Amino acid sequence: MQTVERWDVFEVRVKGPADGNPFTEQHIEGLFEGKNETVKADGFYDGDGVYIVRFMPSFEGEYRYTLSASFPIEKRTREFSAAPAGQDNHGPVRVANRYHFAYEDASPYYSVGTTCYAWVHQKDEVIRKTLEELSEGYFNKIRFCVFPKHYIHNFPDPVTFPYEGTPVDNSGLNEDNFAYTVGFAGNDWDFFRFNPEHFRRIERAILALRDRGIEADLIIMHPYDRWGFSDMGKEADVLYWKYCIARFSAYRNVWWSLANEYDFMKTKTLADWERYAAILCEKDPYNHLRSIHNGLSYYDYTRPWVTHCSCQRIDLYRHVEYTDDLRVRYGKPVVWDEIAYEGNIDMGWGNISGKELVRRFWEASLRGGYAGHGETFLHPDDILWWSHGGELHGESPARIRFLHMILTQTPGLGLRLGRGAFDETVGVPQDGAPDSYEIHYHGFGRPSFREFRKNPEHRYRAEVIDTWNMTVTDAGVHSGKFRIPLPGHEYMAIRLTRIGRE
Amino acid sequence: MQTVERWDVFEVRVKGPADGNPFTEQHIEGLFEGKNETVKADGFYDGDGVYIVRFMPSFEGEYRYTLSASFPIEKRTREFSAAPAGQDNHGPVRVANRYHFAYEDASPYYSVGTTCYAWVHQKDEVIRKTLEELSEGYFNKIRFCVFPKHYIHNFPDPVTFPYEGTPVDNSGLNEDNFAYTVGFAGNDWDFFRFNPEHFRRIERAILALRDRGIEADLIIMHPYDRWGFSDMGKEADVLYWKYCIARFSAYRNVWWSLANEYDFMKTKTLADWERYAAILCEKDPYNHLRSIHNGLSYYDYTRPWVTHCSCQRIDLYRHVEYTDDLRVRYGKPVVWDEIAYEGNIDMGWGNISGKELVRRFWEASLRGGYAGHGETFLHPDDILWWSHGGELHGESPARIRFLHMILTQTPGLGLRLGRGAFDETVGVPQDGAPDSYEIHYHGFGRPSFREFRKNPEHRYRAEVIDTWNMTVTDAGVHSGKFRIPLPGHEYMAIRLTRIGRE
Repeated sequence: MQTVERWDVFEVRVKGPADGNPFTEQHIEGLFEGKNETVKADGFYDGDGVYIVRFMPSFEGEYRYTLSASFPIEKRTREFSAAPAGQDNHGPVRVANRYHFAYEDASPYYSVGTTCYAWVHQKDEVIRKTLEELSEGYFNKIRFCVFPKHYIHNFPDPVTFPYEGTPVDNSGLNEDNFAYTVGFAGNDWDFFRFNPEHFRRIERAILALRDRGIEADLIIMHPYDRWGFSDMGKEADVLYWKYCIARFSAYRNVWWSLANEYDFMKTKTLADWERYAAILCEKDPYNHLRSIHNGLSYYDYTRPWVTHCSCQRIDLYRHVEYTDDLRVRYGKPVVWDEIAYEGNIDMGWGNISGKELVRRFWEASLRGGYAGHGETFLHPDDILWWSHGGELHGESPARIRFLHMILTQTPGLGLRLGRGAFDETVGVPQDGAPDSYEIHYHGFGRPSFREFRKNPEHRYRAEVIDTWNMTVTDAGVHSGKFRIPLPGHEYMAIRLTRIGRE
Repeated sequence: MQTVERWDVFEVRVKGPADGNPFTEQHIEGLFEGKNETVKADGFYDGDGVYIVRFMPSFEGEYRYTLSASFPIEKRTREFSAAPAGQDNHGPVRVANRYHFAYEDASPYYSVGTTCYAWVHQKDEVIRKTLEELSEGYFNKIRFCVFPKHYIHNFPDPVTFPYEGTPVDNSGLNEDNFAYTVGFAGNDWDFFRFNPEHFRRIERAILALRDRGIEADLIIMHPYDRWGFSDMGKEADVLYWKYCIARFSAYRNVWWSLANEYDFMKTKTLADWERYAAILCEKDPYNHLRSIHNGLSYYDYTRPWVTHCSCQRIDLYRHVEYTDDLRVRYGKPVVWDEIAYEGNIDMGWGNISGKELVRRFWEASLRGGYAGHGETFLHPDDILWWSHGGELHGESPARIRFLHMILTQTPGLGLRLGRGAFDETVGVPQDGAPDSYEIHYHGFGRPSFREFRKNPEHRYRAEVIDTWNMTVTDAGVHSGKFRIPLPGHEYMAIRLTRIGRE
């Protein structure tokens, strides 16, 4: 009997008709039954007469499955077994305790994300470099697009296109004649015939991320387009959504991002987004995390299908500092998926320092939210991490990994904003005992000491955290009123952990 | 005939009764008549049987004056002459073109302020050092208090007190037992008998500032008090206001700040502040600038007596970036008198870097407002510029002076926020020809180049301004579309000045 790890992908491949348009004319689905669940999953046509149905078992034990299709299938019921999850397999990420995330096996998940919008559309050599960087453990989530990207620094065609057809000529495109909104003349696509290899590339990427413990925050739609994929019409849109869901759902590390900068897609209405969300809710058997990323206006994250806020900053000067407000307003995890990138391009969203980006990570995280990284340094071959992946050049990734290490030490699951005596940002445990653990973060402030007034009957281990130099220094055990010296430079934090009597 | 410079102080001293309480029982005033003005000015009792009436002539030419008093005066009418103003004497600062300031002689005044709340109450040696620093030309406005200050780092008694009496014992006061709100037991003051020497010290300071081209932004009331001066009762308050006005009005460089952090003075009501303002409007013959500085809530700056907004930041992360909003809201000059200080004390308002403070100055200034400096470095003798004056230790003052130099090069009078292509802050002339002059400031952004698209028929001198390293570098003459390289670090600006055809 076949065996697959719990939360891994069980896949059935069958041969079927290749004539006509199998993408629209044929259908296949599987019914997967185990002791604890019965799941119906759509399959999809993968080209060359091959049909695939995928399933992610959420439980250990024996399963049987039954395929049904619009074409004859030789043996319709078989069995397989789901083995215990391996050591690094914690299942899909879920929302826990309203504001934070945990894997399905209840391990905490502290999101430190990055963005490489078009990395899967690059040449293999660039993808290899990207994965090398991702192996360093700087990030545990990455945002990227299913469709290729047309934008400044993004004029070469992708390695593959999602549809059969031919693209508009891209010679002569450059930064000077770039326009955000273009017509789609010169393209010749059949929006009802997918190019399976395009999607296989994405699946290989999802697996490579999974093996590195990284969540794949899949951006299904976006406005950076010269091919017409952002304006295919309702029927083709629905076909695309169902194809993505059928292909990608069974990967445990998938998150659904309905769009990047949804409000910049002028051809889409609120009804469109709600329709796509409804398809997701109906068709994704595993209820992967779902959100939608804004340009200038937040989506209404209170809607029931939205699992978490996926925010881009809408003010240059104050953004992650609204994390605690957004938690109150939306009652869901707050993930800042775009807060400007470390780099030096001309765009204001792409030229902050590593220090400022790391500051934003700490502000978001200590207020009980999460932040995302991106990098935009000018590059001789125009390979910028934010779009292409490749090599990292900035100072922030190592500091983001350090922050993640600190976050994993949180008692219970996740932080929230506590009260400080001064203007510092204070992270305290979301569900912890009062006054048991707190991190006082001073951001751009540079105090040369801080005083605390604590219950004289309690004892606290004090540590000074240099968030930039990535050190944690013991500052002794204290009670009552005490003073902790600081070096008087930016980006310092003090952590107090209550300890038992001795 | 006596001669005094236009906008200088003409002073008449007469002997009168010293018995009883001259401050409340006697009265003296002068009527000053010249070709272009007739001014009635209250005099005041200066102790030791001496009464003084002061007058600031706003015009050149001959004046005669008539004193009247509650006691006999030997010769009641005399003459004097107002000579042309000296080279550095431009008269009082006035509001011009709604958003900016100019001296009465129409010279532009670009405010770059500082704050030394209690510098006039320090020993002469500290005052001497303060004046030495102020001679460096970093600032052209300074905020300070008439009453002494009780606060952290401010526990020693002032050199003089404003009233006859004895203060509460200050031994044993320290940072540990400091309380913002204290009772006033232990004090013994006669709030109806001023100590003239206290006020003379302030006048000497005003004159020393005047001689250095610095405006004296006098804070008449404030909440940092252990002596009861913030809660003297209505009758004593009114007497105090009239005494201040009679003594200080004739100094051309005086601005009236009704209070520092007015909303932290819990014993004062809106009606109180409006009453003080009404006294000012009635009694100050010269209509010096008037405002009131907030703690957590802005005063209603639309009120007619308010000449300009005197703002303290009410958000940690976004403040001077509201300058353009406040200009729209209040229709008056916006002066950010408190936006956190360069330093390293534990308080969040007193430990930002010089770089961040200078960034705030540029943001405020390019948006058509003004900013104020302060410095709070821990000091072995507890002499912090923000309160005591003394020596400057920070990096910001020289950069603030550099900014002032740039501001004085503005065509016309003052800047306002223009439109940039990206996220930069753009200052353009308040009243200048469109597209004639602009400064693009990138703040914490670090673009390695910027592109401009200008009218191909116009020619622009481009300059790269390093606001931190204080350099202005020629970047050539350009037309149409052109690119200006930048070094890719923070705090850079590009200035474009339209020039004629050649």
